[in-house]
Amino acid sequence: MPRRMNAAAAGFEQEFAAFLAENRDNGVDVVGVVTDILKRVRAEGDAAVLAYTRKFDRVTLTAETMRVTAAEVDAAFAACDAKQIEALKIAAARIESFHRRQVPEGFGYSDAEGVELGLRWTSVSAVGLYVPGGLAAYPSSVLMNAMPAKVAGVPRIVMTVPTPDGALNPLVLAAAKLAGVTEIYRLGGAQAVGALAYGTQTIQPVDKIVGPGNAYVAEAKRQVFGTVGIDSIAGPSEILVVADKDNDPDWIAADLLSQAEHSDDAQSVLITDDTLFADAVAAAVERQLAELPRGEIAALSWRNYGAIVTVTALADAVPLVDRIAPEHLELAVADPDALSAKIRNAGAIFLGRHTPEAIGDYVAGPNHVLPTSRTARFSSGLGVHDFMKRSTLIRCDAASLGRIGPAAITLAEAEGLDAHARSVAVRLGQPQGA
Amino acid sequence: MPRRMNAAAAGFEQEFAAFLAENRDNGVDVVGVVTDILKRVRAEGDAAVLAYTRKFDRVTLTAETMRVTAAEVDAAFAACDAKQIEALKIAAARIESFHRRQVPEGFGYSDAEGVELGLRWTSVSAVGLYVPGGLAAYPSSVLMNAMPAKVAGVPRIVMTVPTPDGALNPLVLAAAKLAGVTEIYRLGGAQAVGALAYGTQTIQPVDKIVGPGNAYVAEAKRQVFGTVGIDSIAGPSEILVVADKDNDPDWIAADLLSQAEHSDDAQSVLITDDTLFADAVAAAVERQLAELPRGEIAALSWRNYGAIVTVTALADAVPLVDRIAPEHLELAVADPDALSAKIRNAGAIFLGRHTPEAIGDYVAGPNHVLPTSRTARFSSGLGVHDFMKRSTLIRCDAASLGRIGPAAITLAEAEGLDAHARSVAVRLGQPQGA
Repeated sequence: MPRRMNAAAAGFEQEFAAFLAENRDNGVDVVGVVTDILKRVRAEGDAAVLAYTRKFDRVTLTAETMRVTAAEVDAAFAACDAKQIEALKIAAARIESFHRRQVPEGFGYSDAEGVELGLRWTSVSAVGLYVPGGLAAYPSSVLMNAMPAKVAGVPRIVMTVPTPDGALNPLVLAAAKLAGVTEIYRLGGAQAVGALAYGTQTIQPVDKIVGPGNAYVAEAKRQVFGTVGIDSIAGPSEILVVADKDNDPDWIAADLLSQAEHSDDAQSVLITDDTLFADAVAAAVERQLAELPRGEIAALSWRNYGAIVTVTALADAVPLVDRIAPEHLELAVADPDALSAKIRNAGAIFLGRHTPEAIGDYVAGPNHVLPTSRTARFSSGLGVHDFMKRSTLIRCDAASLGRIGPAAITLAEAEGLDAHARSVAVRLGQPQGA
Repeated sequence: MPRRMNAAAAGFEQEFAAFLAENRDNGVDVVGVVTDILKRVRAEGDAAVLAYTRKFDRVTLTAETMRVTAAEVDAAFAACDAKQIEALKIAAARIESFHRRQVPEGFGYSDAEGVELGLRWTSVSAVGLYVPGGLAAYPSSVLMNAMPAKVAGVPRIVMTVPTPDGALNPLVLAAAKLAGVTEIYRLGGAQAVGALAYGTQTIQPVDKIVGPGNAYVAEAKRQVFGTVGIDSIAGPSEILVVADKDNDPDWIAADLLSQAEHSDDAQSVLITDDTLFADAVAAAVERQLAELPRGEIAALSWRNYGAIVTVTALADAVPLVDRIAPEHLELAVADPDALSAKIRNAGAIFLGRHTPEAIGDYVAGPNHVLPTSRTARFSSGLGVHDFMKRSTLIRCDAASLGRIGPAAITLAEAEGLDAHARSVAVRLGQPQGA
């Protein structure tokens, strides 16, 4: 059974604080191994990448065959189940539509002093998308990572996907085609991240790398950060469901298990104002666990990290939600809008009784790459903004510089930066400074 | 003399690529020291912070006196030079005005399938602002870091500033007052970063830490990243000036030196289409260096890292600019708009002959915290966005879930995630899945 907490009980604050501080990280130390791989990829390029691929994926490739050709992508697409392709197309269209609304606009204006100011958004030139490998690869993740880059206008979207023992999920290639990926390489692990960051004889380097991966991939992304941009490092998945007693316990149990089945370090939490409902959900979880193909994984997650918190009134859930800052928040209550309006920290919010979190994983439209491990306090899900950057624009003429320049000179001199002051002063006809 | 390169010469590509790959990082290894400091601050709180402050800043404080009181801030404000306060006020007002235009707006809509979708921006709850210490602290940096947080609506803005031997620049406190800082502590170094990230008995933890600092501060920010958000780690400052021969060489020289005076690892680069003009600027730099109070620092920067590149036509500068991806880009040419429109990668762009970079450091309005070390390829200057985060919103009812749910079930099953499929299917009256 997962832990039960009662927000009205003595000692709850300590118990909840300890719960928040719990670390679900497995913490495998791969720093040294990854450092070596990256160093060799940087020095040797293709040769290193191909050698590591032979070693780790048991596949012998050449500089030529490591790239997946357009013909191979088309063949994979044609070989996919028609119903699955249809579902992928629905997902791609809905994701594209939602992300188009995110495209930020710049601005420009001339102010009272005659200074022209502006802000311009431009897309990143080239993005690398890491896709985990083998038959278990998730085509939905390809859509969620590549589509915002495409909508942002990134001209070059490079995907790497390992093909252990030669296996490559055709639906992943189909998703790449739908999402506008422009180059695909049969590479994985830290060596793929190195190839994307530093480039090789065959692969031009990219400017930013996104996408999920194992501990080696995550560490490689950490190490190449600075040389390229990266997305946030994803932790284990989480769901927090706030539910009143008028829900079907079976529905809520299914939602909790939809995260628990991801991995044994995933976390599912229920907050409710009704103890009997809490009991009913707990019982429904046990029943469903017995039927679930990934029941063993889900059971480990639920028993080790799951939690049910009872509160006196639903409004008491709000501060707890903000402290948990969940990746996914379901508000299965009568008036979800009122509750949602009070909440500051959540990656994605699912409103009402008919919005299971899984609908957001696939077809709703918003991104499923979301901040985990309480980072929704300060970060956001993946979006178009992550593939664009801002430049600011400033233009003075002699008159406007004459109006605002003296204040700049005063501050530069106060900071002891005389060359700063001088670069303004020379233009005001004061070559010695103010 | 700085290096000279000619874009039309044989071997330029190799020379330019080597120039781009140069590392100006001093690379002091402080990882171990910082790890120890953070561990002790996390375990002991106030006691550790006060002990490190005694050791590194030679100041004995208590949990009470480490906080700067409102009365102390007011006294500092009153003690400042009136002209400097006036200049700070001009800067604060202009920075606030520009940043107000950046505040992003969310959206909400109902789509053709009846799914309600939305995106909401909320501010971070609490931000820590690290300010480097002593009398050399920069009040302009306080404005540039705190003002976007204030405009974003961050309710709690906590500043830490070390006071080595008790010294605290009153203009820094004045800037904090103008920028809406809500708490100030006399702390610095890795111990201040630890106190902000983990909290102590006296200091509540924050959610995000921004602001420049030395190698210890930068490493501490790296290590607490994940527990809190951080801004990017700033490298040495840079300016790239693209100038035609119709500029006054003295003006351009002054601009190049305004970055060179920051530190001996700063970098100033000129691209021009006129060799004689290049010579004239180089000569003007030498003349000005002799007069500059920080001339020794600027000379080291200019001789070690400065560069002058000549191109056949100004349009040839565009790809070079994008590869350098400069922190600051001045376009001192006849038609700066035409050139600017072709450029993708630059933190801030200064248009025309009357817009010295230093005007942006102080009073123009846009932020002076900008991406260095070629990171403008994928990142932006500090702005309101850095103090806000997005939550997405999804709401289905029975009918709309009925329309989009089947595609989600198909994809979940294709990915082998049956509990995902089931959480949708139960709501469609298909408890066994599709």
